[in-house]
Formats: sequence, structure tokens, C-alpha cells
Amino acid sequence: MGEKTQGYLMIIGGAEDKDNECTILKKFVEIAGKKHARLTVITAASQDPAQVGQDYIKIFNRLGVEDVVALDISSRKEAQRRDICERIMNSTGIFFTGGDQLRITSLLGGSQVYHALHSVYKEGVLIAGTSAGASVMSDTMIVGGSGDEAPKGNAINMAPGMGLLEEVVIDQHFAQRGRIGRLLLAVAQNPYVIGVGIDEDTAILVTPEASFTVIGSQTATVVDGSGVDYTNVSELVAGEALSMFNARIHVLSSGNKFSLKSREPIL
Amino acid sequence: MGEKTQGYLMIIGGAEDKDNECTILKKFVEIAGKKHARLTVITAASQDPAQVGQDYIKIFNRLGVEDVVALDISSRKEAQRRDICERIMNSTGIFFTGGDQLRITSLLGGSQVYHALHSVYKEGVLIAGTSAGASVMSDTMIVGGSGDEAPKGNAINMAPGMGLLEEVVIDQHFAQRGRIGRLLLAVAQNPYVIGVGIDEDTAILVTPEASFTVIGSQTATVVDGSGVDYTNVSELVAGEALSMFNARIHVLSSGNKFSLKSREPIL
Repeated sequence: MGEKTQGYLMIIGGAEDKDNECTILKKFVEIAGKKHARLTVITAASQDPAQVGQDYIKIFNRLGVEDVVALDISSRKEAQRRDICERIMNSTGIFFTGGDQLRITSLLGGSQVYHALHSVYKEGVLIAGTSAGASVMSDTMIVGGSGDEAPKGNAINMAPGMGLLEEVVIDQHFAQRGRIGRLLLAVAQNPYVIGVGIDEDTAILVTPEASFTVIGSQTATVVDGSGVDYTNVSELVAGEALSMFNARIHVLSSGNKFSLKSREPIL
Repeated sequence: MGEKTQGYLMIIGGAEDKDNECTILKKFVEIAGKKHARLTVITAASQDPAQVGQDYIKIFNRLGVEDVVALDISSRKEAQRRDICERIMNSTGIFFTGGDQLRITSLLGGSQVYHALHSVYKEGVLIAGTSAGASVMSDTMIVGGSGDEAPKGNAINMAPGMGLLEEVVIDQHFAQRGRIGRLLLAVAQNPYVIGVGIDEDTAILVTPEASFTVIGSQTATVVDGSGVDYTNVSELVAGEALSMFNARIHVLSSGNKFSLKSREPIL
């Protein structure tokens, strides 16, 4: 772990405060260059990209950034456009909105925009995503699965993500939608993966040394399956209940740090 | 741990199947003596004790037991009645229904019925409880706290339980009501306590050697805080988010066994 964590990510559990303290969005602006930031909002996940784009432009303007563009990429053809790639290459911060994570990956996967994003990420440009925009950060992402359910066979759907963060699975709106069951199931499927469930109005800020710090008002829950010595996950038929012994769980709140390399929280 | 686990408990996460396989209720009948069982249903938790009592009498009759009585104890005075205590003393299985756990403890706490229950428990009579009837089993019980919320200061209410099972905190309707946050908070308050979250239509069957076996269709989640090396729980103001590092979590399903002494699952 770690070699592939090359840049700065801000992974937000959805519903970040946009009206009051704006702790998370202010932090995004601060890291991206404050009033000199050049921000690009990618609304590909959204069903109503024009509105969502306008909303974030207004917020970032209010937080002191003038140079904000919302890119509404609505086809794979657009995801090849040179002007769009150039805007990304010239940005100091990228922000993925919420919506449907499969819209992001099915529109952008393998495109010129996809490569531009990976390129600026490696150069240290901050890439943020909220809700669906958070889920897409990892290699493999959760795309479906009910909340408030026990972990059971066939209870989650996964798909290839944007691959900015390896060996991690993200879930968002975590406590608020009762998603611990699906995160446990994801970890059971490959206990080497670190499951990170991020609550609403909460974010993890990942840095190149493969650690993250929690910001925001709620918690990030880490499920580390590396000590798991038994699971029945490979034998489950649909609806059959999971067994998984000896996972570790950490509840992290604002200011807590976690090393993805050593898999240990740091005060 | 263990010295005080003297008898047999069946702790049910609520909504046990009453119409189809009836796995849990059949097991209760089997252990309590099959057709020779003398079952006593205690409806003290319920707002509608007469109806709930009749429902369980019908079910247990259908499962082959003729001698079933529902005791509607609705005042502390009734909880001193000799005839009620005698019925309990002559039972081979006791079943606490759901409702409000504070009704059970505020009606029965310290009464003759309470002492009769402890007495038959020590003699090996099976005591079962579902939902609120499950929560009351432990020394300290959870009586309130929202589901689908991050663990935060002031987010749970606890009260003294019936004390049949020590050093354990039970939660019920666990996955279905998104209660992991409140269980994590309970464990953080005293990491020596073992948190057991029991899903609907699922039960743990506790035996005198201080271990339990899971039965039913969903899961029991064990949160073991004995390895916790940091928590901020004692400093939290209302609404402030919890930190807790290095708890262990086990997801157990039907047939899995857990030792409360060694704090290890057993296949």
C-alpha cells in the first residue's frame, strides 16, 4: 500500500455543510489555492448537472474563488474534448459532485478526461468528491446495496472505480443510511481492502504519504480485515448471512489521522 | 467474566419468525422441555399485554406445548404476588415479549418476581426475551438512542437491566434499525463490556459456560473493546463525534459460537 497513493484526495461522505461553517468546502478552497484557486466542478454523476454546477459555482464564489468552472460532461465523446482536458490540466482543484457513481465511470472511464485527471492527480492537484463522487475514488467501488440490512450474500454490487486510491473501498452517507453491513461485506470479499465509511458532512483528506486526516462534524469508520481468520463470504447463496471473525474497527472524528500503510490510527 | 453466567438465556433481536420455520421459537420449546414444557410468557414490556400474551400462547400451542400461561404484571404490587412467583418457579421456560424495556425493569426490579426469575435462572431454567425482552438481560441496558446516526456525545441512554448477563450490552433490531453507532458508543463508555448487536429473526443462546451460539436467519455483531487504546468518549459534549481506536468486530451467523470468557469466536 502507498506507492500508488500519489496525490491529494478529499473524499466527502455527502451532504457537506454549504450554508454555515462550510468546514469541508473551505478546506478544499484553502488547499486548492484560496482566492487564486482555479476550480473545476465535474457534474457527470448528476441527473441535473446544470443546477448542481451552478450551486457549487455560487458556493465557491462566496468562499472567495472567482475562477470556477462547472464541466457538464454528458457523453463519452465530450470526455475526449481537448478544451475540457485543458481546463482540467490548468486547475488547482477538481470537485466531483454527487449523483450516480456509475454515470461518472461509464462516461469518463479510459477517456482523455480520465487520463487528464490521473495526470493532474500525480502532479499534486487536489481531487475532491462528495457522495457518488467519493465512491468513485477507489479501484473497486460500491454501486448498490440496501442500508439497514444485515450483511448477506448478494447484498452489494461493486464495479471498477476511477482508481485514484488503491486497496481501499469507500462508502458514503455511512451512518445516516445504515451502511455498515455492506461495508463489512465488501471487506469480507477481500480482507486486504480497507473499508472506509464516511458520514455526511465529514471528509477524509488523503495525502501522498498514504495517510488521511478526518475533518467535519461526524465520523469516518475504518474496517480493517487484515486480521480476519474466518469468513464464509465465498460460500454464501443470496440472502444467506455473513460470518467474519476478527476484523478491526476504528471510529475516527475530526483531527484523527489514519495511516493506510501501517493500518493504524494516529492521534 | 463467566462466574455470573449461571444459566441458559435465549436473547432474540426481535421480529422472530412466528409463521414459517419458527426456528427460534421451536428451539425455545425444544430446550424448555418440548411437549412437557411449562412455559410462562411475561408481557410486562408491552402496551397491549393481553393481545401479545394470547398471540404467544397460540404460537406455543401450535408448536406442541399445552401448558402456556401469559402473566400480565402491570403493577409493582402484582410483582410481589405469591401465585405469580409460584408459576415462575414451576416453569421450564420463561419468555419476555417486546415493548419497552423500562416497563420491565421499573415493574419488576427488586420484586419477588425478580428474585424468582433469578432463582430459576440459577437452577437452569431457560429465560428468553425478544426485542425489549432481549435488552433487559444485561446489567446495564440501552434504553434509547436514534438509529442511522454517527456515534456522538449524549446519543444513547442507558439504565440498569435485569442483570442476568454481566459485562455484556445487548442491542436488538440491530442491522434493521442501523444501531451500530449506539453500540459502539456503549462499548466506548466501558471497553471491558462486550457489545452484542442482534438482528431481527436472530438469537444468541447463552449457556452456563459463558459462551453463546447464534441461531436464526440474520447476524449477531460482536464489538469487543478490550483492545481499545484511545477514545474521547469521556470528553464529548452533546452532538460531538466519537473517536475509538482498535476495537474488534465479529459478524456471526447461524451455528457460529462465541466465548464470552476468551472473547473469541469459535467455528
